[in-house]
Amino acid sequence: MLTAAQYEESLRRLNLTVYMFGKRIENVVDDPIIRPSMNAVAKTYDLAHQPEHEDIMTATSHLTGNKINRFTHIHQSIEDLVKKSKMGRLLGRETGCCFQRCVGMDTLNALSIVTFNIDRKYGTEYNKRFLKYLEYVQNNDLTCDGAMTDPKGDRGLPPHEQSDADQYLHVVEEKKDGIVVRGAKVHQTGAVNSHEIIVMPTISMREDDRDYAVSFALPSDAEGILYIMGRQSCDTRKLEGQTIDRGNLLFGGHEALVVFDDVFVPWERVFMYREYDFVGQLVEIFAAYHRQSYACKVGVGDVLIGAAQIASDYNGVSKAYHIKDKIVEMNHLNETLYTGCIACASEGHREPSGTYNVDVLLANVHKHNVTRFPYEIARLAQDIAGGLMVTMPSDADLRSPETGKWINKYLRGRSEIPTENRMRILRLIENITLGTAAVGYLTESMHGAGSPQAQRIMISRRMNMQEKERAAKKLTGIVDE
Amino acid sequence: MLTAAQYEESLRRLNLTVYMFGKRIENVVDDPIIRPSMNAVAKTYDLAHQPEHEDIMTATSHLTGNKINRFTHIHQSIEDLVKKSKMGRLLGRETGCCFQRCVGMDTLNALSIVTFNIDRKYGTEYNKRFLKYLEYVQNNDLTCDGAMTDPKGDRGLPPHEQSDADQYLHVVEEKKDGIVVRGAKVHQTGAVNSHEIIVMPTISMREDDRDYAVSFALPSDAEGILYIMGRQSCDTRKLEGQTIDRGNLLFGGHEALVVFDDVFVPWERVFMYREYDFVGQLVEIFAAYHRQSYACKVGVGDVLIGAAQIASDYNGVSKAYHIKDKIVEMNHLNETLYTGCIACASEGHREPSGTYNVDVLLANVHKHNVTRFPYEIARLAQDIAGGLMVTMPSDADLRSPETGKWINKYLRGRSEIPTENRMRILRLIENITLGTAAVGYLTESMHGAGSPQAQRIMISRRMNMQEKERAAKKLTGIVDE
Amino acid sequence: MLTAAQYEESLRRLNLTVYMFGKRIENVVDDPIIRPSMNAVAKTYDLAHQPEHEDIMTATSHLTGNKINRFTHIHQSIEDLVKKSKMGRLLGRETGCCFQRCVGMDTLNALSIVTFNIDRKYGTEYNKRFLKYLEYVQNNDLTCDGAMTDPKGDRGLPPHEQSDADQYLHVVEEKKDGIVVRGAKVHQTGAVNSHEIIVMPTISMREDDRDYAVSFALPSDAEGILYIMGRQSCDTRKLEGQTIDRGNLLFGGHEALVVFDDVFVPWERVFMYREYDFVGQLVEIFAAYHRQSYACKVGVGDVLIGAAQIASDYNGVSKAYHIKDKIVEMNHLNETLYTGCIACASEGHREPSGTYNVDVLLANVHKHNVTRFPYEIARLAQDIAGGLMVTMPSDADLRSPETGKWINKYLRGRSEIPTENRMRILRLIENITLGTAAVGYLTESMHGAGSPQAQRIMISRRMNMQEKERAAKKLTGIVDE
Amino acid sequence: MLTAAQYEESLRRLNLTVYMFGKRIENVVDDPIIRPSMNAVAKTYDLAHQPEHEDIMTATSHLTGNKINRFTHIHQSIEDLVKKSKMGRLLGRETGCCFQRCVGMDTLNALSIVTFNIDRKYGTEYNKRFLKYLEYVQNNDLTCDGAMTDPKGDRGLPPHEQSDADQYLHVVEEKKDGIVVRGAKVHQTGAVNSHEIIVMPTISMREDDRDYAVSFALPSDAEGILYIMGRQSCDTRKLEGQTIDRGNLLFGGHEALVVFDDVFVPWERVFMYREYDFVGQLVEIFAAYHRQSYACKVGVGDVLIGAAQIASDYNGVSKAYHIKDKIVEMNHLNETLYTGCIACASEGHREPSGTYNVDVLLANVHKHNVTRFPYEIARLAQDIAGGLMVTMPSDADLRSPETGKWINKYLRGRSEIPTENRMRILRLIENITLGTAAVGYLTESMHGAGSPQAQRIMISRRMNMQEKERAAKKLTGIVDE
Repeated sequence: MLTAAQYEESLRRLNLTVYMFGKRIENVVDDPIIRPSMNAVAKTYDLAHQPEHEDIMTATSHLTGNKINRFTHIHQSIEDLVKKSKMGRLLGRETGCCFQRCVGMDTLNALSIVTFNIDRKYGTEYNKRFLKYLEYVQNNDLTCDGAMTDPKGDRGLPPHEQSDADQYLHVVEEKKDGIVVRGAKVHQTGAVNSHEIIVMPTISMREDDRDYAVSFALPSDAEGILYIMGRQSCDTRKLEGQTIDRGNLLFGGHEALVVFDDVFVPWERVFMYREYDFVGQLVEIFAAYHRQSYACKVGVGDVLIGAAQIASDYNGVSKAYHIKDKIVEMNHLNETLYTGCIACASEGHREPSGTYNVDVLLANVHKHNVTRFPYEIARLAQDIAGGLMVTMPSDADLRSPETGKWINKYLRGRSEIPTENRMRILRLIENITLGTAAVGYLTESMHGAGSPQAQRIMISRRMNMQEKERAAKKLTGIVDE
Repeated sequence: MLTAAQYEESLRRLNLTVYMFGKRIENVVDDPIIRPSMNAVAKTYDLAHQPEHEDIMTATSHLTGNKINRFTHIHQSIEDLVKKSKMGRLLGRETGCCFQRCVGMDTLNALSIVTFNIDRKYGTEYNKRFLKYLEYVQNNDLTCDGAMTDPKGDRGLPPHEQSDADQYLHVVEEKKDGIVVRGAKVHQTGAVNSHEIIVMPTISMREDDRDYAVSFALPSDAEGILYIMGRQSCDTRKLEGQTIDRGNLLFGGHEALVVFDDVFVPWERVFMYREYDFVGQLVEIFAAYHRQSYACKVGVGDVLIGAAQIASDYNGVSKAYHIKDKIVEMNHLNETLYTGCIACASEGHREPSGTYNVDVLLANVHKHNVTRFPYEIARLAQDIAGGLMVTMPSDADLRSPETGKWINKYLRGRSEIPTENRMRILRLIENITLGTAAVGYLTESMHGAGSPQAQRIMISRRMNMQEKERAAKKLTGIVDE
Repeated sequence: MLTAAQYEESLRRLNLTVYMFGKRIENVVDDPIIRPSMNAVAKTYDLAHQPEHEDIMTATSHLTGNKINRFTHIHQSIEDLVKKSKMGRLLGRETGCCFQRCVGMDTLNALSIVTFNIDRKYGTEYNKRFLKYLEYVQNNDLTCDGAMTDPKGDRGLPPHEQSDADQYLHVVEEKKDGIVVRGAKVHQTGAVNSHEIIVMPTISMREDDRDYAVSFALPSDAEGILYIMGRQSCDTRKLEGQTIDRGNLLFGGHEALVVFDDVFVPWERVFMYREYDFVGQLVEIFAAYHRQSYACKVGVGDVLIGAAQIASDYNGVSKAYHIKDKIVEMNHLNETLYTGCIACASEGHREPSGTYNVDVLLANVHKHNVTRFPYEIARLAQDIAGGLMVTMPSDADLRSPETGKWINKYLRGRSEIPTENRMRILRLIENITLGTAAVGYLTESMHGAGSPQAQRIMISRRMNMQEKERAAKKLTGIVDE
Repeated sequence: MLTAAQYEESLRRLNLTVYMFGKRIENVVDDPIIRPSMNAVAKTYDLAHQPEHEDIMTATSHLTGNKINRFTHIHQSIEDLVKKSKMGRLLGRETGCCFQRCVGMDTLNALSIVTFNIDRKYGTEYNKRFLKYLEYVQNNDLTCDGAMTDPKGDRGLPPHEQSDADQYLHVVEEKKDGIVVRGAKVHQTGAVNSHEIIVMPTISMREDDRDYAVSFALPSDAEGILYIMGRQSCDTRKLEGQTIDRGNLLFGGHEALVVFDDVFVPWERVFMYREYDFVGQLVEIFAAYHRQSYACKVGVGDVLIGAAQIASDYNGVSKAYHIKDKIVEMNHLNETLYTGCIACASEGHREPSGTYNVDVLLANVHKHNVTRFPYEIARLAQDIAGGLMVTMPSDADLRSPETGKWINKYLRGRSEIPTENRMRILRLIENITLGTAAVGYLTESMHGAGSPQAQRIMISRRMNMQEKERAAKKLTGIVDE
C-alpha cells in the first residue's frame, strides 16, 4: 500500500493534459486550486496506515491474499460492505469534503460482477482480463476514476439519434490490437488525481446503440485524453493563500470534463464491447454501489454538526433550548442517513461472480434521502451560525493594521474566545453550505450517483407491490376471481 | 410451540377480571371487540408453524436447545436481532395492526441483561430466578405482557412526592415469601391476550424512590389484578357483525388499564427489588429494544401502500403520474423506516450477560422516524383514496333492498370492479388512517416505546459531539490551548 | 333573518327521503347521528343575531337593501370577500367541525357571475332567473346545498362515453315547462340540513357532453330526490347518549349520496342548459370560491390548538420547552393558512356581473396548503395529547360503580384537575384527529373543493412563467433571437 | 424624485471611509465588487420613473403632498401597506438580489410611530424633529440605511454588563448641542450605497441600559463612521470582468460592519435618548415592518423559478412530469410566501400617529416561512438544474481557443440552444443558490429582520391562546369553577 507521500510522488510522474480558466496547467499537483483535492485523496492512503483505522481502511485481496487498501478491494462478504459504508463516513469526517476515490472502487466491483455475467452468456473473456487488471490496480494501490456520465445532448433522444454522434462516448474504429473511442465524460470527480480512468456507458441501450456499449480502462494520461476543470463556488479563495477564508484549510474536491479525442484502447483493457444487453445491468449495479457510497455525506454532516455546535458555543447560546433541539434534529437526520448506508450493506447478497452486492432497493432509498436531508442539515447549520457567516469581513481585514482592531473588537462573541476562532468556524460552515464544499455536500448529494428521479425510478421497479396488494386484499376480504 | 388453536384454548383457561364499558366481561376470548386482538396474537403462533416463515419466526433456545417461538427467545447474535426486525415487518403486514407480542419479548431480553448486571454488583440471584422463569415461558410458549408505563400523576414530581403514592406502582408490604404491590400500568397493549404480565419501573429513580424500584412477573389472572379496556376509534363497528365497515375483517389491537390492587408476588418471580440504581438501565435497554420493535409499522405500511394502490386501480387512475409518484414516495418513506430497524440490529453488540443488544442511538433514531413518516404515509393514502373513504354509506346500505341498487350503481369505479370491492379497500384505508388500526399505526407510533421527546433525549445523550467538534476544529485550523 | 330555532322549525316542515344504515329515517331533525350536523348549521343563524359577530355574519343585500345573513350574500367588495374568510374561521372555531353552509354561498356567487356571462354571449335569461331565485333565498334565509361532484365512474372517460350514462348527472327529457334530470351527487356536505339543492356540472365539457351541461336549483325535498347518509369514523358514539366519548358534545358534520331519480326541474329554476362551453368557467369559479372557504379549517385548528394546550396543562407539562415549541409551530402553520384565505380575498377583483371574485391563483395556493398543514397540526396535537387519548377507557367506565374509582384515581393528571376534564379534552382531540371531526378536518381538507392535484393543475395554469423567464434571462444576459 | 443617474452622482459626492480586504477603497461607486449593489439600489430610483410601475413605486407625501418615491413614504393606508409588499416583489424580480433600500423605509415608518408615542408620554419633541428630518429625506429622495443590529458580545448578558461596554452602541458624552456615540452595527445591508444612516437599539432594555437607548440619524459620511465590507460567497468573481460566471450580470447586494468611533450627533437628529421603556416597542414595530419587507424574496423566487424552467427547457426535459411537478411546487411555495406579505398588509391598522402598521402576528408568520421555503425552492432549483451547475468549466474555458470547441460541443443541451445560453442560466441558478445572491436569498432570509427564533417568540406572544382554550372547553363541556 502506498503512503500519502508515495501517492503524491506517483501523481507527479503522470503527464496529464489539464486546462483551467482556458489555459493548460503545467504543474497539476501543486496548483493551488487542485491541491486540496489531491490532499483529500491522499487521506485515503494515509488513514490506511493508521492502526486505529486499519480494520476499516484495509482488506485482504481475494486475488493475492495481500493486505490492500479497501478502495481497491472486491467485496467478499456482508462485513466488507458494511465496512465500506463506515470507511465513507470516516473519510467524510476527516476531510469535510468529497475524497473522490469511491467511484473507482464502485466501478471495479460493478465490473467484477458484470464481466462475469457477460462471459457466462457469450463465452467471452472479459472477466479474466478484468481480474488481471484488478491485480495490477491492487498491487500498485492505484486511484481509479470511474467515468459513467456522458454529456447526453438532447435527453429525449437515444445515443444513435443524437445530432452530434459524440454526445455519448463510442467506438469509432476497431483495430487489430484494440479500439479507438471518442466522446466525453462530465462531472468527473477527482479526475486529475487518478492514475486510471475506467469508462462505462451511462444508460440502458438497444441494439442500435451497440457502438456505445463499451467499457474499458486507460491510464489517466493516455494520449488523446484531456481534462477541463470545472469551477466551484468560491474556488478562487484558494488563490488567496492560506487564509481562514478558505473555511476548510486543507481539503476540497474537484470535477472535470474529460474529453476522449480519438483515444486508442488495447484489447486487454476492454471489458465490454457491443454487448448492449448488459449495459443496463452495469449501470444499475454501479449505481447501487455508488448510491451506497453516499455514506460519505454522513461524515461531512458530522463536521457540519460539530461546527454548528462550536459556533453556538462561541456565541454563548449553546445552552438555549432551541439551539440544543436543532443540534438534535441535525444529528437525527444525519444518523437516519447512516441507517440507510448500513442497512443496504447489511442486507447485501452474493452475486454469481462471488462479489457481494448491496440491496438495490435500500441503496436507492438511502441515496434518495441524501438528496434531501443534507439540505435541511445545512439550513439548520445556517440558522445556528447566525448571519455573520455571510457578512463577515475577510481574513485580510483581520490582519490589517487599519481594520484589525475593529474586527477583533466587534466580531468577538464570548469574551474568552479569540475572534479569529469564531471567524474560522463560521468560514467552515460557509464552506460546506455555500462554498467549495457545498458543491459536494449539497449539489453532488443531489445529482451524484444519479439525480433524485433516477432513484425514484429504481424504487418503483423494486418496491414489490404485488406482495403489498395481496396482504391488503386478504385483510379486507377481497377475493379476486 | 403452541398452535394458534392451542393458544386460544390456553386463554380460555385463564380467569381474568376484565371490564369494558363499565361492566365485567364474562367471556373474554369471544368478546367481539376483543376477539380481533386475540386473532392478531394467534398469528404469532400460526406463522411459526409455516415452513416459509420458520426461519424468521422460530429460534433455538440457548437454555434448552429446543426450537422455540422467536417471541420467547433471548437474542444470541446479530442475526437474531435482524430477524426480529424482519419478524415485526412480516407480522405487521399479515395482520395490518398491532400484534402485541413484541413487548413481552423485549421485556425478557432487557431483564436477561439487567438481572445479570445487578447480580454482578450486588451478588443477588435475580438472573438465576429469571432464567428459570424464562425456561418456563419458552417451554409453554407463553405470551407475556411487558408492563412499564405508570400513570405518573403530576409529571413534574418524582414517585415518592406524588400526592397519591400509587401513581407509580410500588411495594406496600414485604412478606416472608414475597412482596405485595400496588399501583397501575396504563396503555397495556394486548393485556388480556397474555398469559403473563411482567412489571418494570418506568423512569430513572433515586434512593427515595427505592420502593418503586421493583420488577416481577405474574400470571395475568393473579388475584388482585384487574383490567379496564381502553376504547378505540370505531371500536363498536366490531359489534355490527362481519360487515365490511370493519375495514380489517379479522385483526385489531387493544390496550388496557391494568390495576394492581395489593397483589402478592412470590420471591421467585421478583427480578428487581429496591436496586434503584439499575432502574435507569432497565428502562433504557427495554426502550431501545422496544423502539427497534417498531419494525412492525413497516409491515402495516406495506398494507396501507398496497391498499392505496388498489384503490387507485379501482378508480381507474393508477397510471396517472401523480398517483405513481405518491406510491413511490410512500414506499420510499416506508423503506427508510425499514433501514432504521435493520441498521440498529445489524450494528448491535453483545452485553456481558451474553444477550445481544441493539445499537441504542440508531434504535432511537429509527423510532423517532416512526413518529413522523407513518403520518405522512397515511396522508398520502388518504390523498390517493379520495373523499369517498369518509362519505361512503354503510355496508347495511349496500345490502338493503331499498338503497343497495343506488350504492351499487353510483359507488362503482371502473365498471369491471365490483362496487363492494371498492368499498372494502376504502374501509381498510379508513381503518388504518382513522379507525381502530389508526390507534396503532399513528398514535401508538407516536407514543409507544416512548414519545418523540424521549427519543430526542436519548439521541442527545448518544450523539458524540466531541468527535464531531474535534473534526471541525481540525479542518478549520482551530487549536485549543 | 331566521333564528336558530326558526331554522330548526323550517327543517321539520321538509319531507326529505333519507336513508341511513339501509333504512329510511322518519324524523331527520331529531336523529341522534344527524342532529349535531343540524346544530352546526344552526350556529350560522345563531351567530348572525349576536351583536359582536354581526359585522362578520351579516351583509346588506344588493337586491333588496335588506340586512341578510352573509351566507346568502353576493360579494359586493373586497371587504365582503375578506369578511367571508373571517366568518369561516369564526364558525370553525365555534363549532369545531364543518358547518356546511359555505358551499351554497359559493354556488350562489359562482352562478351570479356565470349566468351573467352566458347571457352576454347567448342572449339568454339565466341571470334574471337566478336573481329572482336569489331574492327568494335571501328573503327566506335559506340554507342551500351546492352539488357539484358526480360519481364519475371510470375517471379515464368523459361523461358521454361512460358505460353507465348516469355516472354524470344529465337531462333525460325536455318538457314544455322544464326538464327531467337523472344522476347523483356524492360527498354532499350538509345535504339533509338544507332547504335547497343547487346542482352544477363537475368537469369541463365538450359538445358531446352537452346534455350534462346543466345547472339548476330544487327544493331539497323535491320528488325523486333521495339521500343516503355516509358514515363517519366513530359515528355511532352519538347513539351512546350524551357521553363525553363524543368529544365534541354538540356539533358535527355529515355527507350524503344524493340520488336524482328522474327529477323534474321547472324552467325558472334552470340556470344553465346545454351551454357546455361555460361549464369549465363555472367549475373554476366555484372551485376558487370554495377553496377560499377552507378558511374554516383555521377555526377548527384554533380549537385543536386550544385543546392541545389544555391537555398539556392538565398533564403538568405545559411549561416544558418542547411543548411550548410545538404549540408555537401549530399556531404558525394555522396562521399561515389564515394568510392564504385573507390574501386571496384581499387580492380579489370585480367580475363583469358586479360580483367580487377571489384571486384564483392564491385561492388555489391556500387550499393546497390546507391539504397539508392540518395533518401536521393534528400530528403535533397527538404528540402533545399523549397516548392516553387512544387507550382511555369509556365514559361508562368512569360512571360505573365497579371501575369509576380506578379511572378517577389512575387517569388523573395534575391532582387539582378533575379526571373527567382531562378525559373530555383528550376525547376532543381524538374527535378532531381520528373521530367524526377528523373527516372534516383531515380528509375533507384533502379532497373538499378539489383534491390536491386539482389545485396543482390550477396553479400550473396561473403561475405566469413567461414573466419569470423574462426576468431570469434579462439578469443573466440571454437575448433570444 | 431622483433618477438613477442622479442617485449615482449623489453617491459620488459622499466622502465615505470604506475598507475591503484590509485596505481603504478610494472610489466606492466604481469598485467592481460594490458596484452591482449600487446598481440594485439605483433600480429603486429607475423603476419609479417608469409609468407601468408608477402606482407601485411612488406615493404622495403626507407632509408635502408631493409625489415621492415610496421608499421614503410613511404608510397612510392599508393600500399603501399592500403596495409596499408588491414593490418588494417587483424589485426582487427585477434585480434578483437584495436591493437594500427597504430597511430605511421601515426605519422611517417605525420612528414615525414611536417618536409620537414617546412624546405623548414624556412631552418631548422627537416627532417634530423626526418629521422635519423626514421631509428632508423625501425632498432629496435619499436612501437611508436603518441600523439596528449590535455586535452583542456575549448573548447571555445585557448591554451594561458586557465586559466590553461598546458591544452595544451607546452614548459616551452629552454635549450642549448634541451627543457623542460609540459602538458598531453589523450586517448593514447597503451601507455604502446610502446617504443617511439611522440608528436604533436592538433589544428591549431596562433602566440600567438607558445609555444604550438611543436613536438618531447621521449622514453616512459623518466623521468617525467607518465601514468594513463583508465578504460574500463568490464575491471575487466580480473582479474577473464581465464574464458569465457572475450569474447575475448587473446586480448584487452587500453588507458591512459599521463602526461609530465617537461620533457626534446634533440634537435635531436625535429621535430617542434614554427612554429605555420605548426601546422594546421600537424594536418590535421595526421588526414587524421589516419582516413584511421579505416580500422581496418572492421576487427573487420568481427569478429562480424562471431560471429553473429555462434550464429544464435547454436540457430538453421541460415536459417530463417530475420537472413540471417540481416547478408547480416551487411556485406553490413562492406564492404561499406572497400570501403572507399580502395578508399582514391587508390586515394592517392605524397607529395613534396616523401611520399604518402591519398585523404583527401575520408579519412574523410570513417572515418565519421565509426562513424555510426559499431553502426548499433552492433545493428544487438545484434538482432541476442538474449537476452541471457546479461542475461546469469557466467562461474563460468557453472563450479559450484551446478549450472553447470542447465546451461548445460537450456542454450543449438541445442542439438549437447556444451552449453559452445554457451556461448563463446555470450560472444564475448557482448565483442564487450558492453564490453572492445566496447570501441574500438564503442566509439573509434566515437571519435578516430577526432569526427564526425571534419570530417564534413574537408568535408565542401574539397567538391568543385564551380564545382557543375557551372554544375548546366549550365544545367538550368543560366548565371551569
